[in-house]
Amino acid sequence: MKAAILTGGGDCPGLNAVIRAVVRRGEQLGFQVAGVRNGWRGLVENDLVPLDRNAVSGILRLGGTILGTSRGNPFDREGGIAALQETLRRNGIEAVVAVGSRDTLLVAQRLFEQGYQVVGCPKTIDNDLPGTDYTFGFDTAVTVAAEAIDRLHSTAEAHSRIMVCEVMGGRAGHIALQSGIAGGADVILIPERPVELEEVCNQIKARQARGKRFSIVVVAEGAQVEGAGETASPEVDAYGHPRLGGIGTYLARELEKRTSIETRVTVLGHIQRGGTPTARDRVLATRFGVFAADLVHQKRFGQMAVLRGDQIVSAPLSQVTAEPKQVDPALFETAAIFFG
Amino acid sequence: MKAAILTGGGDCPGLNAVIRAVVRRGEQLGFQVAGVRNGWRGLVENDLVPLDRNAVSGILRLGGTILGTSRGNPFDREGGIAALQETLRRNGIEAVVAVGSRDTLLVAQRLFEQGYQVVGCPKTIDNDLPGTDYTFGFDTAVTVAAEAIDRLHSTAEAHSRIMVCEVMGGRAGHIALQSGIAGGADVILIPERPVELEEVCNQIKARQARGKRFSIVVVAEGAQVEGAGETASPEVDAYGHPRLGGIGTYLARELEKRTSIETRVTVLGHIQRGGTPTARDRVLATRFGVFAADLVHQKRFGQMAVLRGDQIVSAPLSQVTAEPKQVDPALFETAAIFFG
Amino acid sequence: MKAAILTGGGDCPGLNAVIRAVVRRGEQLGFQVAGVRNGWRGLVENDLVPLDRNAVSGILRLGGTILGTSRGNPFDREGGIAALQETLRRNGIEAVVAVGSRDTLLVAQRLFEQGYQVVGCPKTIDNDLPGTDYTFGFDTAVTVAAEAIDRLHSTAEAHSRIMVCEVMGGRAGHIALQSGIAGGADVILIPERPVELEEVCNQIKARQARGKRFSIVVVAEGAQVEGAGETASPEVDAYGHPRLGGIGTYLARELEKRTSIETRVTVLGHIQRGGTPTARDRVLATRFGVFAADLVHQKRFGQMAVLRGDQIVSAPLSQVTAEPKQVDPALFETAAIFFG
Amino acid sequence: MKAAILTGGGDCPGLNAVIRAVVRRGEQLGFQVAGVRNGWRGLVENDLVPLDRNAVSGILRLGGTILGTSRGNPFDREGGIAALQETLRRNGIEAVVAVGSRDTLLVAQRLFEQGYQVVGCPKTIDNDLPGTDYTFGFDTAVTVAAEAIDRLHSTAEAHSRIMVCEVMGGRAGHIALQSGIAGGADVILIPERPVELEEVCNQIKARQARGKRFSIVVVAEGAQVEGAGETASPEVDAYGHPRLGGIGTYLARELEKRTSIETRVTVLGHIQRGGTPTARDRVLATRFGVFAADLVHQKRFGQMAVLRGDQIVSAPLSQVTAEPKQVDPALFETAAIFFG
Repeated sequence: MKAAILTGGGDCPGLNAVIRAVVRRGEQLGFQVAGVRNGWRGLVENDLVPLDRNAVSGILRLGGTILGTSRGNPFDREGGIAALQETLRRNGIEAVVAVGSRDTLLVAQRLFEQGYQVVGCPKTIDNDLPGTDYTFGFDTAVTVAAEAIDRLHSTAEAHSRIMVCEVMGGRAGHIALQSGIAGGADVILIPERPVELEEVCNQIKARQARGKRFSIVVVAEGAQVEGAGETASPEVDAYGHPRLGGIGTYLARELEKRTSIETRVTVLGHIQRGGTPTARDRVLATRFGVFAADLVHQKRFGQMAVLRGDQIVSAPLSQVTAEPKQVDPALFETAAIFFG
Repeated sequence: MKAAILTGGGDCPGLNAVIRAVVRRGEQLGFQVAGVRNGWRGLVENDLVPLDRNAVSGILRLGGTILGTSRGNPFDREGGIAALQETLRRNGIEAVVAVGSRDTLLVAQRLFEQGYQVVGCPKTIDNDLPGTDYTFGFDTAVTVAAEAIDRLHSTAEAHSRIMVCEVMGGRAGHIALQSGIAGGADVILIPERPVELEEVCNQIKARQARGKRFSIVVVAEGAQVEGAGETASPEVDAYGHPRLGGIGTYLARELEKRTSIETRVTVLGHIQRGGTPTARDRVLATRFGVFAADLVHQKRFGQMAVLRGDQIVSAPLSQVTAEPKQVDPALFETAAIFFG
Repeated sequence: MKAAILTGGGDCPGLNAVIRAVVRRGEQLGFQVAGVRNGWRGLVENDLVPLDRNAVSGILRLGGTILGTSRGNPFDREGGIAALQETLRRNGIEAVVAVGSRDTLLVAQRLFEQGYQVVGCPKTIDNDLPGTDYTFGFDTAVTVAAEAIDRLHSTAEAHSRIMVCEVMGGRAGHIALQSGIAGGADVILIPERPVELEEVCNQIKARQARGKRFSIVVVAEGAQVEGAGETASPEVDAYGHPRLGGIGTYLARELEKRTSIETRVTVLGHIQRGGTPTARDRVLATRFGVFAADLVHQKRFGQMAVLRGDQIVSAPLSQVTAEPKQVDPALFETAAIFFG
Repeated sequence: MKAAILTGGGDCPGLNAVIRAVVRRGEQLGFQVAGVRNGWRGLVENDLVPLDRNAVSGILRLGGTILGTSRGNPFDREGGIAALQETLRRNGIEAVVAVGSRDTLLVAQRLFEQGYQVVGCPKTIDNDLPGTDYTFGFDTAVTVAAEAIDRLHSTAEAHSRIMVCEVMGGRAGHIALQSGIAGGADVILIPERPVELEEVCNQIKARQARGKRFSIVVVAEGAQVEGAGETASPEVDAYGHPRLGGIGTYLARELEKRTSIETRVTVLGHIQRGGTPTARDRVLATRFGVFAADLVHQKRFGQMAVLRGDQIVSAPLSQVTAEPKQVDPALFETAAIFFG
């Protein structure tokens, strides 16, 4: 048995931990693992690297992915699937472990439907993939964002200021919500809860009226804020992430204009998806990787590793076609207790 | 309605987040919260402080507990319960929120059995309380330990060394196991898995034979290592924690003697239970606190907040009398894939 | 003898450490210290708080300033100086310790010239104050920025990307230069070194030609980039800091357009000036505070504490009127070795 | 021109940054750099690896040393110097860059005296090398220790406790002193200031008498504490570091016995010398490396890079024979203001 592993889509802390786990568990189960460079593209272009225990030594704590990533879809490429098949044949690869978010796993599912032996490992810092309680990378993103909010807090307190912190989350507000709770945000704006700009201004003014000189506003990049002008539709990339600047900056301008309180903005951007994963993300990614290798060994193709409660279990790849997982309304209500 | 909140037992990151959450949620639900100083002792000695929104402002991210803690048991004290009752009566306190680990919650349960209106909030960095999947403080402890193991890794690689890192966990090995997986430990020793010292030496020698110049050994303070001389029974405190030095130091001496490889030891001690909580622990502590306030409001006494999967639900306080929760054997097997 | 201490201007990690040091050293030398709220304004408005050992307990590690800050100038206010004098008289304050950056210290110097007993303590995260080798807050800002660049590195490597990171530094590029060296930046843009946008594009393309798929661009908010359209003059605040978004965002847009390489931007903003100070900044701030108390005790008014080499010495307040301290050209050359 | 670089002695954050800087600057100046494995031993055993821009890519932020280290002395080895000479000849190496602490640099100096073309780069986390204001690695060690003290503070406050934190520093107390100031230590014990155990107890009791329930004691591993029994002479290694446990543990036992206050101990050990270097250490190590390459290029052999004030300058290698650099008494006095 020989398997291949690829990482697709946006970067995510924990990818290297998954790769290491698949290789080490594969070794233990008696199969070899080849690394595919740059996602699906590497399978089309026959761009493989051999992986063994030494190749994955020391990568557990590294951000990024030693395999590189890309977002090409082999089905959109003339002769893509034929080339991919040829790569598998030529290298004697019987199974593919696809680590990625929605787009990557959709390709995996489609290949599985066509008879390829594929298993999946869900990945997204946004935590919006349906079918799994959590994905690795999310805890790191929340940690980075919460540390930023902590720092903004102390400086906001020293002055009389609104601090706007734009975090990732194009389709769901998980990062904004959890980092906002952890950082003690006064306002949290997420895609699932469209608000009027006027309402946000009122919340901030109400705080001021109670003697609070500052407000921390955490805004997901995909938040819907009515009346914030251009903000409704910042330019987005293929993942739904605003590309260059975005709602944070516009929101800051509007809040300052309407409340007359000095306002500053921080746009965290990709520091949320790079760097060393948290301990929790390394444990989760390692468990996902071990489980994915087990799925290969057990020939349970068309399945992916998911977290339910505290257990790793399998779910059909097809589940990723569902709508993005939204934040738990009860958790938003918990956050709202501390607004104002 | 007026409630009191106390924190008992060992320190734990997230206690202040719980206090803040109970006060803020109480305020929203229409009841006041008094703070009890130094655990149950404060109720016996009528040592209360008023708490309101201002008193808990800014404490979310602070380690320790603004209320102080202690481990006295009012039932063991002559006239203790009568004095406690008098404190409640005099201050018009109808309900008590007890935040603590086993000992604290056992008192809560006993008081409840005697007709007192008590709810609980489980707390331990060790994560060994039965009835809840996770407790706040645990993620912080794992994070601190994993960061230490990361640092030891880089220095172990530069030399040819055994690095022993002693972490907390007197009755269960949760911290050792998760920080060991996260840090890439080569050996993990926990109370649930007694081993022969000889076996550990063999593991390390086998690594060396494969060309690995260094080994990282993570040992829970309560690990059972046969043949390690005094190590079998270091002096322990009331929580079962070895008090001054302990198995780490002894183990390091024995490993060096028997393998002839230079060995160094790090004893993390209380840095695992102090300091600012991780984002995850702040979120969990906040949810626990909100839920505990809800239990008070709904007069669901004799219950405590617990985490099941990703939901906060209630469980009878009596559950804490069960045996300490041990590590999941499957998770230990996952760790063991990477040994050697 | 009774002294007052105030903190003026922008927030800066280490302010609380200075306050604590002045109070504790004053106590030791036998004089009392009153805290002035919100900078010079508090002296005009007689807004003082008593400070003693208990009041400053535990603040060493907190960001922000327990006294608040502002940027008003009493000389610009009708009757400002008379009111200030009345505050000093009424409270029996004989000496004032002014902790602040250029604007704050200019007021201190002017008051000193008019016969007031004032000493100074320089403060700026930008490290551009003349007369002192380093100011506290700078090391924290560099640390925060370097950690961000580290995170961007791992994610940039996984893709083929330009990552732009905008850091503080309106008049000088110290933060950009040191965090850029520490983070391994491929391009560093600072106010002291105006460049053509075309030149930056060429540097990045040259990297690509050598097989480097990504580039990290660190840009000080006050960097001069010719040909970057609006970027030449983003809206600035009273400290010369661009207010909402700024050169980072514009630069990212232009680089992407001209190189056709996907580009992302991170705007760190105020997370560089908030939060817990680094160990080094706490030591430096403590030394500054102790020295400032000594200046008061020795009646060496009109002087401020400065760092020269590894020694704290005094310098006339008038030195702050000099031009902002620019980066050491030799250090920029060191950074440039690693460009491309 | 071809040079070789080696790293000797104990591990130290920043070694990889030096290696990278020497290679990159060498490339710019037109000379090649070979890496010597495991310190001087690699030169005796002809164990070299070629280094170029790719080999040092991405190592700036890694702890440890990619070259490995050892503490052998070629002069103590039969035929050692002849073998070393043969290695240089065979590989065409004209100059050697020795990065290390006292022992490594003494070998370098002795080789220089015998006509070898050697330059040095001082290295020690302890900061006790004479001739340079600071060495890289020190800031990282202080940062790690200060973070640990921060964590101990919050947990000490929650209870009534003495917390002992043992940090590195066998011959001088720089780490203990600076991390103690940064962390707000109540007692700092260093080799330069022998104390009676009784005196320490009295300091702690005096604190208690003033209502302070806890005390943080930072102790350098080489501190002289009279009356602490075995503590006077813990087993030390070749660097003067106590090997397994040491004064911290003994001191904790004695303090508890004599003050009857519960006491806990943390022994930081090698986490102070491993892991990613701070931003400041990366900048300093990079500057040292660039300067060392310049020394080679300028054929200024027998010199080493040192920091004076904020400038990197050269000093004769012979300076390392001087006594270890002790802490500045004035800085200790600054720390002492906050004792008690």
